[in-house]
Amino acid sequence: MQNIQEKFSDKVKHLEASAIREIFKLLAKPGIISFAGGAPDPKLFPKKELAEIAADVLNNQGEVALQYGVTEGYAPLRQWVIDRLTNQGIISEKDATIIVSGGQQGIDLAAKSLLNPGDGVICEEPSFIGGLNSFRCNNAEIYGVPVEADGLDTDKLEELLKAHSNVKILYTIATFQNPSGITMSLEKRKKILELAETYDFMIFEDNPYGELRFAGEDVPTMKSMDKNGRVVYFGSFSKILSPGLRLGFVSCDPALMERMIICKQVEDVHTNVLSQMIAYEFVTRYDIDAHIGKLRQVYGEKCQLMMEMMDKHFPSCVTHTRPEGGLFLFCTMPEQYDSKAVMQKALEKGVAFVPGATTMIDDKASYSTFRMNYSTASKEDIIRGVQTLGEVLKEVVGE
Amino acid sequence: MQNIQEKFSDKVKHLEASAIREIFKLLAKPGIISFAGGAPDPKLFPKKELAEIAADVLNNQGEVALQYGVTEGYAPLRQWVIDRLTNQGIISEKDATIIVSGGQQGIDLAAKSLLNPGDGVICEEPSFIGGLNSFRCNNAEIYGVPVEADGLDTDKLEELLKAHSNVKILYTIATFQNPSGITMSLEKRKKILELAETYDFMIFEDNPYGELRFAGEDVPTMKSMDKNGRVVYFGSFSKILSPGLRLGFVSCDPALMERMIICKQVEDVHTNVLSQMIAYEFVTRYDIDAHIGKLRQVYGEKCQLMMEMMDKHFPSCVTHTRPEGGLFLFCTMPEQYDSKAVMQKALEKGVAFVPGATTMIDDKASYSTFRMNYSTASKEDIIRGVQTLGEVLKEVVGE
Repeated sequence: MQNIQEKFSDKVKHLEASAIREIFKLLAKPGIISFAGGAPDPKLFPKKELAEIAADVLNNQGEVALQYGVTEGYAPLRQWVIDRLTNQGIISEKDATIIVSGGQQGIDLAAKSLLNPGDGVICEEPSFIGGLNSFRCNNAEIYGVPVEADGLDTDKLEELLKAHSNVKILYTIATFQNPSGITMSLEKRKKILELAETYDFMIFEDNPYGELRFAGEDVPTMKSMDKNGRVVYFGSFSKILSPGLRLGFVSCDPALMERMIICKQVEDVHTNVLSQMIAYEFVTRYDIDAHIGKLRQVYGEKCQLMMEMMDKHFPSCVTHTRPEGGLFLFCTMPEQYDSKAVMQKALEKGVAFVPGATTMIDDKASYSTFRMNYSTASKEDIIRGVQTLGEVLKEVVGE
Repeated sequence: MQNIQEKFSDKVKHLEASAIREIFKLLAKPGIISFAGGAPDPKLFPKKELAEIAADVLNNQGEVALQYGVTEGYAPLRQWVIDRLTNQGIISEKDATIIVSGGQQGIDLAAKSLLNPGDGVICEEPSFIGGLNSFRCNNAEIYGVPVEADGLDTDKLEELLKAHSNVKILYTIATFQNPSGITMSLEKRKKILELAETYDFMIFEDNPYGELRFAGEDVPTMKSMDKNGRVVYFGSFSKILSPGLRLGFVSCDPALMERMIICKQVEDVHTNVLSQMIAYEFVTRYDIDAHIGKLRQVYGEKCQLMMEMMDKHFPSCVTHTRPEGGLFLFCTMPEQYDSKAVMQKALEKGVAFVPGATTMIDDKASYSTFRMNYSTASKEDIIRGVQTLGEVLKEVVGE
């Protein structure tokens, strides 16, 4: 058959593969020090505990673990998530909660359930490419709001809302934002909730990193202050336990959830049962907060180390954010430099990062920003890699 | 917020939850004998082998199993699937193959990549609700073609193609069809491939049951005869290993596959890594064909038993198909009776099946058909359950 391309739907015709995931393929080359991913430190996976649990679950509950499950999720794990989110003050009895196959699926189900072609979605700029692609895949009109030191610019947001009556969703990673590492202030969170009432839009609060605070004080989630069911809250086991298990959760208005559950039946019937049972046994048999505490400590140390190395080796005109948690910090060169070109040079020297373009709505333009991950690489690699990257940057932008 | 319903997208507004999965919830009542599901016999899961493998994978390759993976699938498992499909003569070097989170996800990704609102999809009637919902979710126009004893009615198909120039996809479960259990003849498969050239449409060949033949002779898959990349082929580990692990695969034209991979990045990033590694180790360490041979034998015995019990206890005016493999047989009462009403009576007596309406495009109408699964229930339950169902049917339709 000639030109199968002519058969492609309008939804997918213009989509591009996740640049981050394409970069991952380049990283297969051994010896590369990668600050490009968003992966946990593999040394901190509780491998032995999970191995014992997996064998136990398959031996003693194999007929459940290997059989079809319910779309809403494995009941004990789902209840555990509901209890935890309730105890954290994030959700209330008014909310419905389900287990999904990773946080990304939650965003996709909610986007699909709400967006018609041409509907408006406001995103932080920079933002997370997986979120952006969910909205692109639904042919949404995407508008960007710059991220400031205390979170997205609410004045610009209000201007946008006045100018565009088609806005249905605001997408935010309010805490330890991907890619900036910035946390939105309480004041701005409240302001956005007010604006949502005035301009009648939904808020997607994507919070995969919220538990990973290693400095400063907690800021309440927007969901915890949501009185009218406007916030759809996305959480994940990927950063606190394991991304390979593909486990996330969503809490929102029950009527919207009912639509999302039907979409999930169509997408993958239900989430992997074995993974859900393994996760449930882990959080029941072990102290998940102690485990998270260990992650916080290591990521805090690695973040600190990366910042120190940057301050020592980067040219002074290259600045970076100072995150209080999460996995990323964000660097900015003088605006005439394109981070895509710098990435090519860095890759030649064996170091990788994510160029800012992949985090922007117009991902074809030139940007002087880039994202650095500090969770995956070892401390030795952080020391060596940032030093090498400093040399590359000095070649490009000077001292 | 009032009326969140007003915010729902056109894609999901009119969707209904899978009636089959809703029936599953009724089945939680202990003591019910269920012929409603499509689940494997849980006694045949290789629990001990998988328990040993899972512990081994997590202990020795935990840093891979628990970390992010690639969207296309765990490379060794993917290569194993490619080799097997190649050896079975189903795919060639021209095809691209990926691992997905269950066969349903494959259908959803392909449908999403091809369908604009109003595009036509032709389905067998009756058909699989998961397939139908994938097309509904893309606002496709769905046309039905009746299934005859040797597969879908190709004359009716050609009439439909002449009448509707918007047809982009034909969806078929050619082998051991869900729900009818019927296998399409070689002649009809060839005819459909010819029609696809003439009328320029794609064929979705959904083949989750193909390996489960317990009588008769294999019929070549349509994919194996596909010269022009018109067939998208869906396979699954759900029926030959475990549905709880959520593992399927898709083979199709590489350009279409590229779009599907991007959609998969948006839907769930990648398939569960631990499950993929467990499946790979199982097919490598054990004889998967011997395992499938055992399933074939047991399902063949159970199907035979169910048919004997039906012939003994059902009123003579209630007929059933005679499958040569798969998990289902399909029953037809005289047309004035509605199987939904019969199901209510049967449930009261402790027996469940799937009423025909859930397998039809217009699922609100009255149908005298119902689907019976013979793989899940024990032989004792098949004997007792069919006898009870026979009593219910005699009450409704007479001797």
